[in-house]
Amino acid sequence: MKETTFVLAPDSFKESMTAKEVCIAMEKGIRTVFPTANFIHVPMADGGEGTVQSLVDATGGQLYEKEVTGPLGQTVIAQYGILGDGVTAAIEMASASGIQLVTKETRDPFITTTYGTGELIRECLDKGIKKIIIGIGGSSTNDGGTGMAAALGAIFLDGEGNPLPQGGGSLNKLAKIDISSMDARLEHVQMIVACDVTNPLCGETGASHVFGPQKGATPEMALKLDQNLAHYADIVKQQLQKDVRDIPGAGAAGGLGAGLLIFTQATLKKGIEIVIEYTELKAKLAAADYCFTGEGRIDYQTKFGKTPYGVAKAAQEAGIPVIAVAGSIGEGIEMLYDEGFEAIFGILPRVSELETALAEGPRNVERTCENIAKLLKGVEQWKVC
Amino acid sequence: MKETTFVLAPDSFKESMTAKEVCIAMEKGIRTVFPTANFIHVPMADGGEGTVQSLVDATGGQLYEKEVTGPLGQTVIAQYGILGDGVTAAIEMASASGIQLVTKETRDPFITTTYGTGELIRECLDKGIKKIIIGIGGSSTNDGGTGMAAALGAIFLDGEGNPLPQGGGSLNKLAKIDISSMDARLEHVQMIVACDVTNPLCGETGASHVFGPQKGATPEMALKLDQNLAHYADIVKQQLQKDVRDIPGAGAAGGLGAGLLIFTQATLKKGIEIVIEYTELKAKLAAADYCFTGEGRIDYQTKFGKTPYGVAKAAQEAGIPVIAVAGSIGEGIEMLYDEGFEAIFGILPRVSELETALAEGPRNVERTCENIAKLLKGVEQWKVC
Repeated sequence: MKETTFVLAPDSFKESMTAKEVCIAMEKGIRTVFPTANFIHVPMADGGEGTVQSLVDATGGQLYEKEVTGPLGQTVIAQYGILGDGVTAAIEMASASGIQLVTKETRDPFITTTYGTGELIRECLDKGIKKIIIGIGGSSTNDGGTGMAAALGAIFLDGEGNPLPQGGGSLNKLAKIDISSMDARLEHVQMIVACDVTNPLCGETGASHVFGPQKGATPEMALKLDQNLAHYADIVKQQLQKDVRDIPGAGAAGGLGAGLLIFTQATLKKGIEIVIEYTELKAKLAAADYCFTGEGRIDYQTKFGKTPYGVAKAAQEAGIPVIAVAGSIGEGIEMLYDEGFEAIFGILPRVSELETALAEGPRNVERTCENIAKLLKGVEQWKVC
Repeated sequence: MKETTFVLAPDSFKESMTAKEVCIAMEKGIRTVFPTANFIHVPMADGGEGTVQSLVDATGGQLYEKEVTGPLGQTVIAQYGILGDGVTAAIEMASASGIQLVTKETRDPFITTTYGTGELIRECLDKGIKKIIIGIGGSSTNDGGTGMAAALGAIFLDGEGNPLPQGGGSLNKLAKIDISSMDARLEHVQMIVACDVTNPLCGETGASHVFGPQKGATPEMALKLDQNLAHYADIVKQQLQKDVRDIPGAGAAGGLGAGLLIFTQATLKKGIEIVIEYTELKAKLAAADYCFTGEGRIDYQTKFGKTPYGVAKAAQEAGIPVIAVAGSIGEGIEMLYDEGFEAIFGILPRVSELETALAEGPRNVERTCENIAKLLKGVEQWKVC
């Protein structure tokens, strides 16, 4: 009899386990029931927090740290990863320029900069990387990616030929963009941008009005920032012959989406699709009997590009049943049953404080997966063919 | 194809759902996956709280109320049930003489009495009942069942021919037991006593020393109560030629176990066995494909006579897989997997207050059973014969 093969493709359980740790707990539980089965660990992410970790874990790559410029000019230690192939890097912009690097008091989208993200990209170029996967969620910035470009050699000048200060608040004074000194290696490096929003750069649904407030913009500031990005887009169009203003996703991460499209060889893709591709999930599923996935929370939002949803769709394509576990099950999971999810189980054993539940995550995943496996095994045996 | 048949045999989820309500929630969940299946509801209990309700629900019987004498002489409204056959009654002693009917301040095993339990029995006799199932857990008393016997016509006299006061504190003065006026109908009524403890009437492991403290006995009181029960056993042996002192279970419910053995046609049995018998669980299992059980809490104690354990053993005998759900999963469930439990799932969807969890019990049972059913159905379909 052929050994059963399980693909374990969970996201992290935030504040409890990395995706890799979830895989380990899942295997531990299932293995008690299927002691000789094959287990393929595919720690997943959806382009948001944890994406670098997941891609590194899933491909046998390595994490690195780099001192870069934070959103307010401070020094921060940012992480990035090099995947198992040695030529693909993974970056999260939030690691260098994220909202968690400013406080409620210091956040100021007029001055916050993506410069550190640009430094991370440069670091990858220095390491000979040919392809960079970049997650751009969680930004503190509204600079249209100008900081990122500046770190890679672009020069933003005002009408008098003076360099502009960092930050989206000064872009109204932008008169000239000098790209003659830009890092030439960028032309040969593919940027895969994990971007789940479709907001354009400017206007009512643009970066400043939609995401500015959570970065500290008052309505007046958001209006100014929006006008500045519009002016920036005009200059870019005139001088660089690139019209990115209305590209869906250009408005992501305070316009970093636009900046990457302007200054690098970038393609915007859904985060989960990128992760599925680079973890080679589909090839792994092809050989599987069952797929397990999961995330800290599963609810009606899971449909909108979250990992378990992407995994379920991929497994559905492959004809493999997907079983999901979650630390927290919210409203609206019924609709998921039509989308490739065979079943969805919570993992909590009893009423407890959140802290306890987070601390006991691995044991709870293990126990729940063990019991699911018992049913899978049981039904196979009860039904005599 | 034969329709799938599910036997649903849970206990109650205390403070959340009666066993019947659990059955309904289970069916609701499973039915979404097996819309044309047969569902056999067998609301269970283990002889403890909820046993009357379960036996009434499982047999299509009826609940009744009766005003009786509480443990401190107060008036209480006690419940009892008449089963679907019309000639079997079910009583919980706690309903008339339970620890919940005294406060921490008023509890006093010197004076608390089982008189009300005797009145309940008499009420059953008045209704023509031929068999009484009596659960004796949760007592506030230590009177050796003398109160119960008194309510049925026994007279307990001191050396001067005066009737003794109620309660275990006066039994040292017992000189004579007059049973000439006892209700003659008792001879023709079988008492089935649900009793899960094996404590003898007296001594270190007897009623007074083991259970006296939780009823308010100080060590000195427990010693006195123990001596009194020993004296009572001596008198019984001399005058009634019954030696119940060392019968396992005689010490249950402050010696009510002994009292029932002395004054009625009683048999002591494990609570869960009685419930399995009177709900005809085994016959129902014979036709089933799957059995679902559950209880508010499942842990290492489940083995010691709790409902899910009894159900699992019965189903194991019948060769039917048993799946359990629980509001709370404690330590030590691993040992249950060898005892007929196929799998055990918690039902909690997320971290919450206990109150919320209790209030959402039906929905959580429903959702969990739906997902279990999906796996059962799924595996049946995935595995092509």
